[in-house]
Formats: sequence, structure tokens, C-alpha cells
Amino acid sequence: MKSIQLRIPGPTPCPPDVLEATGKQMINHRGPEFAAMVNKITVRLKEFYQTKNDVFILTGSGTGSMEAAIVNVLSPGDKVLSVSNGEFGDRFGSMAGTFGANVTKLNFEHGLVVDPDKVKQALQADPGIEAVLVTHNETSTGVTNDLATISKIVKGAGKLLIVDGISSVGSIDLPTDAWGCDVVVTGSQKGWMVPPGLAFISMSQEAWKAHATARMPRFYWDVTRAKKMLEKGQTPWTPAVSIFFALEVALEDIAKEGFSNVIARHARVARKARSDAKSLGLSLLVADESYASNTVTAIKSPEGVDCSKLLKLLQEEYGVVLSGGQGSLTGKIFRIGHLGWVNEADIAEVTKALKLALPKVGFKV
Amino acid sequence: MKSIQLRIPGPTPCPPDVLEATGKQMINHRGPEFAAMVNKITVRLKEFYQTKNDVFILTGSGTGSMEAAIVNVLSPGDKVLSVSNGEFGDRFGSMAGTFGANVTKLNFEHGLVVDPDKVKQALQADPGIEAVLVTHNETSTGVTNDLATISKIVKGAGKLLIVDGISSVGSIDLPTDAWGCDVVVTGSQKGWMVPPGLAFISMSQEAWKAHATARMPRFYWDVTRAKKMLEKGQTPWTPAVSIFFALEVALEDIAKEGFSNVIARHARVARKARSDAKSLGLSLLVADESYASNTVTAIKSPEGVDCSKLLKLLQEEYGVVLSGGQGSLTGKIFRIGHLGWVNEADIAEVTKALKLALPKVGFKV
Repeated sequence: MKSIQLRIPGPTPCPPDVLEATGKQMINHRGPEFAAMVNKITVRLKEFYQTKNDVFILTGSGTGSMEAAIVNVLSPGDKVLSVSNGEFGDRFGSMAGTFGANVTKLNFEHGLVVDPDKVKQALQADPGIEAVLVTHNETSTGVTNDLATISKIVKGAGKLLIVDGISSVGSIDLPTDAWGCDVVVTGSQKGWMVPPGLAFISMSQEAWKAHATARMPRFYWDVTRAKKMLEKGQTPWTPAVSIFFALEVALEDIAKEGFSNVIARHARVARKARSDAKSLGLSLLVADESYASNTVTAIKSPEGVDCSKLLKLLQEEYGVVLSGGQGSLTGKIFRIGHLGWVNEADIAEVTKALKLALPKVGFKV
Repeated sequence: MKSIQLRIPGPTPCPPDVLEATGKQMINHRGPEFAAMVNKITVRLKEFYQTKNDVFILTGSGTGSMEAAIVNVLSPGDKVLSVSNGEFGDRFGSMAGTFGANVTKLNFEHGLVVDPDKVKQALQADPGIEAVLVTHNETSTGVTNDLATISKIVKGAGKLLIVDGISSVGSIDLPTDAWGCDVVVTGSQKGWMVPPGLAFISMSQEAWKAHATARMPRFYWDVTRAKKMLEKGQTPWTPAVSIFFALEVALEDIAKEGFSNVIARHARVARKARSDAKSLGLSLLVADESYASNTVTAIKSPEGVDCSKLLKLLQEEYGVVLSGGQGSLTGKIFRIGHLGWVNEADIAEVTKALKLALPKVGFKV
């Protein structure tokens, strides 16, 4: 049991052994101890990414890895299809535009799932499109897109598939190689049970081919530099050593539990989060529950309830920390993060707190 | 006394209270606790930056803050003077070129100090130059440039002054406002006694003016986003929370010691490092000791001594971890980092180890 229930979709609570590792003394990031650690971590990351592709660890936020994904494989003027059904999908497309890509937006209402047929039609409508940006799990709405089907369409059309897997890799099944995902990014503070500060990026052979001619300017995020230094067991720039210590321990914890058990646990915990919410008389944002996320559940703010008051009360009276909505959903939803170090008992505590708090902010079933 | 003497120029060892803070449990980075922390930290950073300018905390390595400095105030095609006397100066100029700046290089031999007169001449030779990149303390050679004089020349000519203060701010006097530095960057793992993962950037009014029309593409490093979110006590992207915890404690430790005492301690410790090295019969790389750095001392690898063997022996037999040379100085020098959590006794241990190790790798006085 945690004294505070931090149930936001990242940063997620870290287990005691991970926190202990986070607080270890510094080491030389160009020495043998670091090299052994980064090599060990990289092997594990590839395992949980389900890939034989290169995987690199960057020092930065998840958004940094999204920027890395874009600038490493695209050139200004490249036609890119940005598929979005939420804040993070919007961010990915907007970022590509910032760096000069010619972005076609395929937007879905926030709360709906991406319709793969529409992706197909968009690609058919413009054969000049070279790459597709897609969010696997939309953290802002709690919707998991059907990446298996989307990837078939995108790869079937011979396009580069760039995936924001920030809140899915490690928690929701994402077989990188089986689905042909060319670039997949994620961040340490999600299902990995590690503090924020590191982000990961995988690069397929096709991604490397695109990289070779990609002309968007890059320096800090450049994967060529990352590859060259990883061969020496190093990173190009001084890495967030403490988060590496944490990651080393957390990945072994995941391996001990068994990766498929971790994936199954996330599904189980998410089912409980949804069924508990409904049992309280609340409504889910996701239009079709079969696409509900296993890492975050978005709940509609009930009529007459001030969402920010509810969140404040939950935190101050019950020690339960949830997230509000983002962008157009601000004040309209609240979100329960259930990824990383989480089990059914944690959700039960959230539910208990909600049950007590809701009537105090004017909720009537 | 530390069991391992990690004497590289970053990451530097962290005091026990800082490590304890690093291992604290996660909190909501969009909640009141984080807001209070980031506000408190920002006030302290401004104090030690000796500035009224905006200071932002970025999640990334020091090199990330160099990239941020460039992309936030420059446009492709801008004429930039890159002043360099080492690896990090070279990196700064090369980075500006990558993002499309029209870079004029003013390079000095590695080990020499930047000649301010040459900066003056370069600016006179091309009035079209809009900004000057300069390294305050060149970590690769242990040379501190005369930023006071350089800044007078650059600001006197009405140019934007962009300073890499990564291994100086907080350890070597750098009065940002008094010297008119428009953009100054540094990283958490240097004199701040904090693990790597955060980087800082200050922005003067002139820097903001340049920012308003600067067209280099930026998203992750964009200070407009940082400013907007800091007004809410937040960061635009999920921050490295653990390193914030560490920084909060370390800055209070610095305040407790007294900032001027910290600066004086660095000068004192550096003097001992140099005099000890010379007493062992070693030679400093810096050509003129009056420009020797207070945070890192570069020592010439003595004739007949294999530098990598010396470093390996020091680490394995004596627990003293030093750095080698970078770039063209690889194998030719080794470096003692003495910034952050360091005093004369630490240097004495390094000296003792060197005295024992040097004869074993063929050193003859």
C-alpha cells in the first residue's frame, strides 16, 4: 500500500528498490561500470520492445523522444500523415510541421478511436505521403488505437510508420517487429516504473534508410551519434545517470514478474478501473469500451461537479492524486493513471476515495 | 571522505542529503507541490546566476541547453561568430551550423586562452555578425576565458552574447547581468552537486527580442512554452522530478555555505590541484596559469606514460576516477574535476594516489 495514491498517467510511483537505486552516488558515464549498465539495459529494452531493431536511450522527456523521432527520419517538405485522436496526436503533427514537414492532418474526435479505413483512404488520396505519425495509446483520452491494423495499412502502402508509444510500450502489447513499426518512442516515467528523465527510441532498417537522407536539423537527438557512442557503452551527452540506475532495477523487476504477466496485469487493473467507475455511476469518455486503454482511464466529469474541486478534495482529504483533462477536455474529464507499479488494490483505494469524495462535490447518481 | 574519489568534470559526487532527495517518491508535476518547488528553485538559480533575467529549467543534458540557446534566438542564415579554444567551443559552433547559422569560426589552440582582441577584430571584420558564441570555462582544457573583457567587446558592438557556462555558473564568478550575457546555459551535474538530467538557460530582454523573430525550428527547447508554463509553476514537458528534488536541496546547501564562499572554495581547491600536480613534477596544459580553470585542471600526460593505463590504475587500485582528454587531446592529457562537492582533502587524496600510481606506469620525475 502506498501512503499517497499517485494515479496520474506519469510520473508513476516507483517501487522501493527503484527509488533506492535512483539515490545512488554518481559514477563516471564514460567508464566501465556505466558501459556494463547501458548494455544490460539496452538488451532488456529490446526484449520489452519486442524488437531486434536498435533502441537508444535519450536524456529528456517523452516529448523529446517525439522530436527525436521526427528530426531523425524526415526532411523539410516531406509529406507526412498525422493521425490524431487526442492532445498527444495533435502535438506529434504540430511538431512535424514546426520542423518543416508538409503535414496532412487526419483528426478524430477526442474520445473516439482512430478508424483504420480512414487512414487507408488518406494514404490513397495522396500517394506522395512518405510517413505516418500515429499514437498507439492516447494518454489524453484513454483510447488505445488499433495499431495492428493501422500498421498493416501503412506498411502495406510502403510508408514509414512512426509511433508514439509513450504510454503503451512496456504496459500494452506492442510487438514492434511483428507490426513493422519503424520508429517507436516511449518515456521512462510511464509503465517502466522509473522517474522521468529518460526517453527511448527504436529504429528499424527502413528508419535508418530514411535517416541517411533525412535533412531536418538535429544535433542533441541525432541517433547516428547515439549509435556510435553506444558501441562504446556510452551516450553522446552526459546521461541522467540516476535514472539509468533506476531503469536497470525496474527492468529486472519486470523480467522477474514476466513481461506477459505485466501486460496481463495492466489489462486486469484497467478492467477493474472501468468497472469500478461505472459501478459508482460514472461514465467513461471512450466511446467504445473495446478500445479503452489499459494504462489510463478517462472519466467524464459528472454534470454539476466542478472537476478541479473534485481533484483537490481527492488529493487533500484522501491522498489520491488523479489528473484532469488536457486542451479541449480541460474541466470535462478526469483521468486515472494505472500503469507501472499498480495492482487491483490500488484501484480499490481510488474507488473508495471517489465514493466518499463525489457526494461532497455535488455528485448525485 | 568519499570511498570513491569521482574527480571528473561532471557528473560530480552528490552530498548525502542531495542523494537522499534524489531517491524520493514521485509527485504530480502539475500539482501544487511541484509548483512550490520549481518556484523556489528558480529564485535560487537567479541568485546564483546573478541575474534578474528569466531562468528556465530544461530536462536534458548540458548539450541540450546549448541547442536550446541556439535555436531560441537565431534564424537560419544568421551570421554568428563562434569563439572556441576547445572541444566544447567547437561543439557550440558546429551545432549552430547544423541549424543553419552562417558560422565564422575564431579558433584558438586547445590549451590557450581566447584573445579578446581577436574577438574585437573578428567583429570589426564582419559587421554583419549578429551573435557571438563563447565558452566561459572550457572543460576540455581547463581554461577559463576572460568573459568580462569579451562581454564588453561583444556588447559594446551591440551583438547578442550567448555563453556556454556549463562548467562555470555556480562555481566560477559569472555575473550574468553585470557582464550583459544574453543567454547563459549550464547543467545540473557540474558545480550544482546534482545528478545530470537538468539544464538551465537564462534569457535577457535582448535575447527575448531576438527570440521573437528567430526562425530556427524549435519545439522541445522552446522557451516561450517554458515561460508560459513556469507562470503556472510547471514545465511544458514532464520534468526529471528526481533531479528537481536533488536541486532543491543542493541549492539550499549552496546558500547555507554562502555563494561567495562557494566561489572562493573552488578557487582555493583549484590552486591546490595545480600546485600539487606541479609538486609531483607534472605539467599543466594551460599555457598561462592565470587563466587556469577553478573547476577542472588538465595535466599533460608525462612522456613515456600511457595515459589510459594511468587512469585505469588510479581507478582500480586507488578508487580515484579522473578523466582523459577529448578529441585531439585524447591520450595527451588527463583531467581532474574539482567542482561541486569538493574540498582540499579530496584533492590531497587524488595527489596521494597519483604519487603512488605514476611510478608504476613508468613516470620518472
